[in-house]
Amino acid sequence: MLNSIQESPLYPIVNPKSIAFFGASNNFSAMGTSQFISLRDLGFEGTIYPVHPKEDKVQNLKAYRRVFDLPEVPDLAVLVVPTKIVSKLLEECGEKGIKHAIVVSGGFREVGREGGDREQELVEIATKYGIRFLGPNCIGVANPYHKLNTTFLRYLGGPGFIGMASQSGSFVTQMFNYLSRLTLGFSTAFSVGNEANVDIVDCLEYLGACPNTKVIALYIEGIRRGREFVEMARSIIPHKPVVALYVGGSETGRRAGFSHTGALAGPDQLYDGVFHQSGVIRAYSIGELFDMCWVLGCLPKPRGPRIVIQTHSGGPGAVAADSCGREGFELPALSHNTVKKLTPFVPNTGSIRNPVDITFTKNPMDYFSAIPKVLLEEDNADILLVYFLVPQQMVNRALERMGLSKDQAIEQGAKLIDAQCKSIARLLEIHKKPIVGYTFRSIHEDFTKSLISQGVPVFEGPERAVRALKASVKYSRLREKVLMSASQ
Amino acid sequence: MLNSIQESPLYPIVNPKSIAFFGASNNFSAMGTSQFISLRDLGFEGTIYPVHPKEDKVQNLKAYRRVFDLPEVPDLAVLVVPTKIVSKLLEECGEKGIKHAIVVSGGFREVGREGGDREQELVEIATKYGIRFLGPNCIGVANPYHKLNTTFLRYLGGPGFIGMASQSGSFVTQMFNYLSRLTLGFSTAFSVGNEANVDIVDCLEYLGACPNTKVIALYIEGIRRGREFVEMARSIIPHKPVVALYVGGSETGRRAGFSHTGALAGPDQLYDGVFHQSGVIRAYSIGELFDMCWVLGCLPKPRGPRIVIQTHSGGPGAVAADSCGREGFELPALSHNTVKKLTPFVPNTGSIRNPVDITFTKNPMDYFSAIPKVLLEEDNADILLVYFLVPQQMVNRALERMGLSKDQAIEQGAKLIDAQCKSIARLLEIHKKPIVGYTFRSIHEDFTKSLISQGVPVFEGPERAVRALKASVKYSRLREKVLMSASQ
Repeated sequence: MLNSIQESPLYPIVNPKSIAFFGASNNFSAMGTSQFISLRDLGFEGTIYPVHPKEDKVQNLKAYRRVFDLPEVPDLAVLVVPTKIVSKLLEECGEKGIKHAIVVSGGFREVGREGGDREQELVEIATKYGIRFLGPNCIGVANPYHKLNTTFLRYLGGPGFIGMASQSGSFVTQMFNYLSRLTLGFSTAFSVGNEANVDIVDCLEYLGACPNTKVIALYIEGIRRGREFVEMARSIIPHKPVVALYVGGSETGRRAGFSHTGALAGPDQLYDGVFHQSGVIRAYSIGELFDMCWVLGCLPKPRGPRIVIQTHSGGPGAVAADSCGREGFELPALSHNTVKKLTPFVPNTGSIRNPVDITFTKNPMDYFSAIPKVLLEEDNADILLVYFLVPQQMVNRALERMGLSKDQAIEQGAKLIDAQCKSIARLLEIHKKPIVGYTFRSIHEDFTKSLISQGVPVFEGPERAVRALKASVKYSRLREKVLMSASQ
Repeated sequence: MLNSIQESPLYPIVNPKSIAFFGASNNFSAMGTSQFISLRDLGFEGTIYPVHPKEDKVQNLKAYRRVFDLPEVPDLAVLVVPTKIVSKLLEECGEKGIKHAIVVSGGFREVGREGGDREQELVEIATKYGIRFLGPNCIGVANPYHKLNTTFLRYLGGPGFIGMASQSGSFVTQMFNYLSRLTLGFSTAFSVGNEANVDIVDCLEYLGACPNTKVIALYIEGIRRGREFVEMARSIIPHKPVVALYVGGSETGRRAGFSHTGALAGPDQLYDGVFHQSGVIRAYSIGELFDMCWVLGCLPKPRGPRIVIQTHSGGPGAVAADSCGREGFELPALSHNTVKKLTPFVPNTGSIRNPVDITFTKNPMDYFSAIPKVLLEEDNADILLVYFLVPQQMVNRALERMGLSKDQAIEQGAKLIDAQCKSIARLLEIHKKPIVGYTFRSIHEDFTKSLISQGVPVFEGPERAVRALKASVKYSRLREKVLMSASQ
């Protein structure tokens, strides 16, 4: 692992002071223009030099006919140009002295043998001039801390703690919207494309050293440098978790007509082995990949796999218990002391077992303060899983009936929700045990949104919550294993 | 199976002309009042008789001191009263001649032996007077076709095609919000509670005969009349699919302190056997239960398990192919004819394999009309799975750049989206093959919402789409099996 992010050859790619941009124009439908606009949208603070063979201005910025005309040697070149001129332009960048590039253009190895030859040409140019480049056939990078986004979609939300390296550009751009709705975000995300020069192992190295990255997400269709991958991951695991989604997808694409399972069986097991050996946690869907990153990145590490479930309704409690069981969690019995402390809060319709089924609370605030506090104090439990249901409609209706006007009810309802969420967040801070919520409503309702923004993950259904928590328990074990075998 | 829904003893419980309501008052925080308000909110068109020992009016409706004072014998009594007076009131209902009741009150079998005795008393009263009752310890029913909702949450959305019988009231009420956001809804939903008199098998019988019900969802913690359940389900399967979520949850609740898995292993396999024998499809989460109902209820039955995937991006295509493989679907090779017809639409960066990766279309409308049309005409494929990504922000931005004002762009963007969605819906109608979408964005964005409202299910991630489709393929097989063994 690197000691400092600046040592990484990728540092100037995601933290450039100046960029030469090839392929942006005044034609709005061009891909290059879209990417250029995204770059400026996020407020990149360095210098951008559009390079265009004919235009004097590109999107109101002074344009240069050739890279040789630039007044300085920029840190980075971004190329979104037709396939056939990529190598010529990369060569010119080399002559100018540019040492880092992102080649967005496609039409290389991914289109067959002739494209492979073209890609080899790029590699040779890079070697000749000492250039490190991302791509070809990628959509570049997003580093919101540096206000850098070279992709064609606008970066949404704030900078976050998830570092990503992806063999699909979609799983960078499509996640802007997804993560921002959860008040999450990328620290830095790489779309690695064909990995002709910079590969996923290089990105892993960078993200391992990146101080803004608390957890690393990988989308993998194939690893080329297997041994290096394992070694790199093992050096990072003691410091931060790595989660990977692997699909043998491109294989399937190539082998159209074969049933997918058969084709995958071999590689799938192979990758299982690689991840196991590396201490990398495997996810099985894009949703799960980011669920795991969420819990790993924003909650304290659980001491063990013992969960206590808090609910006010039997079915949701039963479903959560079932999920816990299926994923190998324990539902410990509550200690005598905990039962005693809970008794005043649980009516005779409720149950002081695990799940703790409150049924109803005379003081609704208890569900968010006194009760979870008691459960967090329980020595037999490592994790608190809470069923949340606060249909705002009911809260407001109840307040209206208490004589408040509609506006007053909305205002008071919002205050109540705010107090409830803050109370849970405070418990998280004090007790240093993971608290995770689940609901069967939308997680984009005000109450859940507020909880999430306070740092408490809430999932749609207990299954997702429990699988994400499992990654957290797994990470602690993997970390120990990696540390132990390193010390031997 | 019943020939007509009117033959069911439950008919008056979900289609009453008149209701005697016990337990509503002018105190807004009372559970009974909440339920009473829900009932009136949905616009129940029959007569409601509040029965209250002290009030002259309840929520502005004339109240009656005792059931004997009612001017007629109502079809149904709803009891939301303290445990200790339930049996007395049920007895009075019997004396009055009421033959159907919903007992919402809790404090019976679920609280232990003494409660069990109280429940036995109810059963005896019912037998004495020939009363059929739902509950105790339930939240009643929702039949939006009859504008009936006895639960404490407001019914949202319109009447739908999902019939439900649930051993948890939460999975009725919590689904109002969830289903309405997908433009789905219940035909009729039963919360069965302790099943002292009416049980899940009775509800299954009713829903089997209910003409508004296209698919039946069950939430089960335990089946008491196993043989009857199997027979009833088998009689329904040839007519409509039944999906069940089983959790051994209440067992877990009781056995706090034991690891869940161990405790479940036996019963879980037992229930697997019961479902298999019955032709019931098993779901493993609440989300999956309704995903399956969605696809089963609103799409044509697939002829087989051969899926063709349409995407314009490699990663999302690969992830979908991976999901298909894992769930046992085939990704057939495209016929020569299909390849020929697709060629004009796919640029050289794309791939005419399966997944079909368009990469980009000169005419965006092709993605929603010409291309899926060709894929639906492919004889080798039974199902079309489409990756949808239409970030409205991009559409509007592109239109704005074409010189339209912001308002015009929004208007034109909406028209474009509408045309795209209608085009897909038309293909669904013409080709009679299932079309299912997936996305990594919110399914509550305008584009997806519009597709969904046109009858095309769209899921967050391909895994959910594929698992729901699997239920559909499974149903066809189960149906054949049940029909075949019946004819032997």
